[in-house]
Order: sequence, then C-alpha cells, then structure tokens
Amino acid sequence: MALKGIPKIKKGDDLGEFILRAAEKQNLSLEENDVIVLAQTIVSKSEGNVVDLREVKPSKLAERIAARLDKDPREIEVILQQSDEIVRLRHVIISRTKHGFICANAGVDHSNVDPEYVTMLPDDPDASAARVRDSIKRKLNVNVAVIITDTQGRAFRRGCVGVAVGVAGMNPLHDLRGKRDLYGKELRVTITSPADDLAAAATAVMGEASEGTPVVVVKGASYDRSQGSARELMRPPEQDLFR
Amino acid sequence: MALKGIPKIKKGDDLGEFILRAAEKQNLSLEENDVIVLAQTIVSKSEGNVVDLREVKPSKLAERIAARLDKDPREIEVILQQSDEIVRLRHVIISRTKHGFICANAGVDHSNVDPEYVTMLPDDPDASAARVRDSIKRKLNVNVAVIITDTQGRAFRRGCVGVAVGVAGMNPLHDLRGKRDLYGKELRVTITSPADDLAAAATAVMGEASEGTPVVVVKGASYDRSQGSARELMRPPEQDLFR
Repeated sequence: MALKGIPKIKKGDDLGEFILRAAEKQNLSLEENDVIVLAQTIVSKSEGNVVDLREVKPSKLAERIAARLDKDPREIEVILQQSDEIVRLRHVIISRTKHGFICANAGVDHSNVDPEYVTMLPDDPDASAARVRDSIKRKLNVNVAVIITDTQGRAFRRGCVGVAVGVAGMNPLHDLRGKRDLYGKELRVTITSPADDLAAAATAVMGEASEGTPVVVVKGASYDRSQGSARELMRPPEQDLFR
Repeated sequence: MALKGIPKIKKGDDLGEFILRAAEKQNLSLEENDVIVLAQTIVSKSEGNVVDLREVKPSKLAERIAARLDKDPREIEVILQQSDEIVRLRHVIISRTKHGFICANAGVDHSNVDPEYVTMLPDDPDASAARVRDSIKRKLNVNVAVIITDTQGRAFRRGCVGVAVGVAGMNPLHDLRGKRDLYGKELRVTITSPADDLAAAATAVMGEASEGTPVVVVKGASYDRSQGSARELMRPPEQDLFR
C-alpha cells in the first residue's frame, strides 16, 4: 500500500514521523514485520544529501565527458565524485559507486528536486534505513524492516526496475540451499533476494512522476529477520559471471 | 495474493480453469485489469515442455562442459539445445536462449518436476500467456493481463529475482519520456518495466520450495494495456552498455 500525503521533504525531517502520520491518516496500522519501502530521493533530501550545482566546479575530465554525452558538466562532476570506478562509458556513465553499487550515473538524480540541484544516494543507505526503523520502533514499539530503493537500469533487459540500496531489519537474501522441491530434489534457485523483489514490488506502486508516492508499506512479506545490509546484495566482481 | 490449492500440473491441463477454481475457493474474484502471474514451471508442464533425460544423448561438447562443471551431461545437452549463443561459461552457463533471453542454464530446471526430467521455458512464452488470458476471458468475460515469470540471477547483484519471460495484455514497459517531476523537470528514469516489477513482486509471495504457490493475482497495478510481448524487454546487444 502506498502512503498518501507525504509532503515535500526537507533536510532534517524525521521520515519516521511523516510515515506514522500518513499511515494514521489512511487508517493503516503499522505492525510487527511490516516492510516499509522508501524511495531514495526522500531519504537523501531528509539527510541534506543534495548538491547545489552552482557550487560545483567541474574538472577537465567532467567537462570532456559532458561534452561527449551532451550533459551538464557539473552533474557529471558530481557523478565522478560519487564513483570509485568507471565500468562503462558510452551514452551513459556506468560506474561502481563509493557504496559499491554498479549503476548508471552513480545514482545522481536531477529529478524530484529543486532546479539547479541534484540528489545523491544517501552516504550510508543501510544506516539511513536503520534510522527510519529505529524511529518507528521508538514511537510505536513495533519492529519493521526498512528498504531504501532506487530505480535502476540493468544488463540485458530494457526498462528500469526498483532495487534495494539500503536495508535494515531484514536479511536481503534468502538462502534455500539444502531445501527441497515438491519432489524432494534440490532446488535450482539457491539464493533469492526478497529485498530486491520487494523493492521492485514497491516501485510498481510508487510511480516515478509528479503523482508519485515515495513510501510503500508491505504486509505479510516473508523474509528472514536480521540487522541486514544492502552490501550483501553486491556480487564480488570475481564471482560475477556477467561482468 | 497467492492462489492456494493449485494441484500438480500435467500436460494438457487448462491453467485458466485451475486458476478460476482456486480463486473461487478462496473467494477471490478476478476482475478487469487484474494481473495474473504464473511461475514458468507450471506453464511448461501444462504444455508438456518437459524432457525425459533418459532419452537425451549428450554431444561431446555437452560431455566436456558437464565434466568441467560437475553437472549431468544430459542436462547440459538440453541447455545447449535451448541456446542460440553462449555468453559466458565458467561455473555456470550463461547463454542467450532461443527466445532471446540472457540467463543462466537457458531456463532449464530440474526442480519441481519428476526425477529424471527437466523443464524448459515455454517455446513461445508470450503465446502461453495469451492462452491463459484468453481462457479467463472466455470463462469470465474479464480482461486480465498475464505474466509468466522465471527466477533468474543477474549481473552485479547477488540473489535471484523474478523477471517476466512471457506477457499478454500489457505493455511490459512504461514510457515516461516527456513526463515531468514534482518540479516540472524531465525525469531521470525514462522507461520503467512494470512487468518485471510485478514479476518480482509476485515472486516475493510465491516462494521457491515445496510450499510454493505458482500463481499470484495482483490487483490495482498500474500498466498500459496492449497485446504486449516479453521480447520488448530484451535490450538489443548494441544498446547494452553492460554487455
């Protein structure tokens, strides 16, 4: 269920507070084991993780890339600063972000923020997720899991889908090794990612444009409780057959 | 919502019939624009798209690969026969299937089927989805969209997620180009994939093991009606920056 009526978020806003108020208004009670999914943009805004492009001095490299991609050199500069490694560079920059994610534009986004500003991914998205979880725990004494999502492109398939960039209160993976199928045989699929499946589920109800709702509550999801970290979702390059 | 009580599927079974009966039993009415998501395995079984491994003669190549990967050479042979191109080969075969999907093991699965058998992806998953859609249309005079899912690994991230391999009655992509954000600016994310987001959502409630429920009904999802085809989800190699 999408939470309606979440206002435009400013630096310092307590997202847990907004979530509670919005849920109350639509008579939705937050219960033990619910999963709260938040779009990355509002988390970044609440943390002030926003850059005023007028204060960015693009490097020579950023200017060259910007000319080639026909993009704003200041935005490219922010992307480079958020990146540890450039994985591909053609009409888009695919990089490994400082958090370890491989995605386009290092998660830097000029949409859903004031003109002349861009949002970046939260500095530590797991910690951001944990803060929302703790805020709800403090106020309601209820344990929820929290997922912070970003909408990202992927290899081989068209269209962006929601993925988890921050996680708290759940194991983002579910290990089926040793489990048996209907016929008592080992399963082909041995590790699933409930965090990414739920991130995609939430993205399907969030929408991207101006009518978007950046917070979704998932009830009855099956996941393993743990502190959790989206870092567990990153495939080490040496194990990545697709790389 | 997962449909409970779908029995083990045999060749020739009318999946639409089973879906209707299961929905009735749990007092779930199927309505216009609902999305019915089916796990690939039951579709393949209903179409007899199952191979008796005892009748497979592995080629020399299949035997060499099988020795290297410590797998059943007959299963490798089926994987090769389902593949048009080998994209990677290390501890797993990543190939482009005859349908055009890039995935591990060409979608060949030894789980959730009788011992000595494997299931393959449906020969034409869009047509399979259309058959289920038509069957429900005939019986209830209701237009639903149908997605056939497979649970697949992906580049850069650990854990398998649900993706759409067959689609009927919906555009698997949603084009946001020209739409505006909260601030009137162009969106960063221009094309989303509701079909894959919903495939992942359904996978989160299906489960993989013996207690799995292979059919999920999604209500209130937002998508563009069209005939649709999962082929639209395939990124042409020359446009695939990740490749």
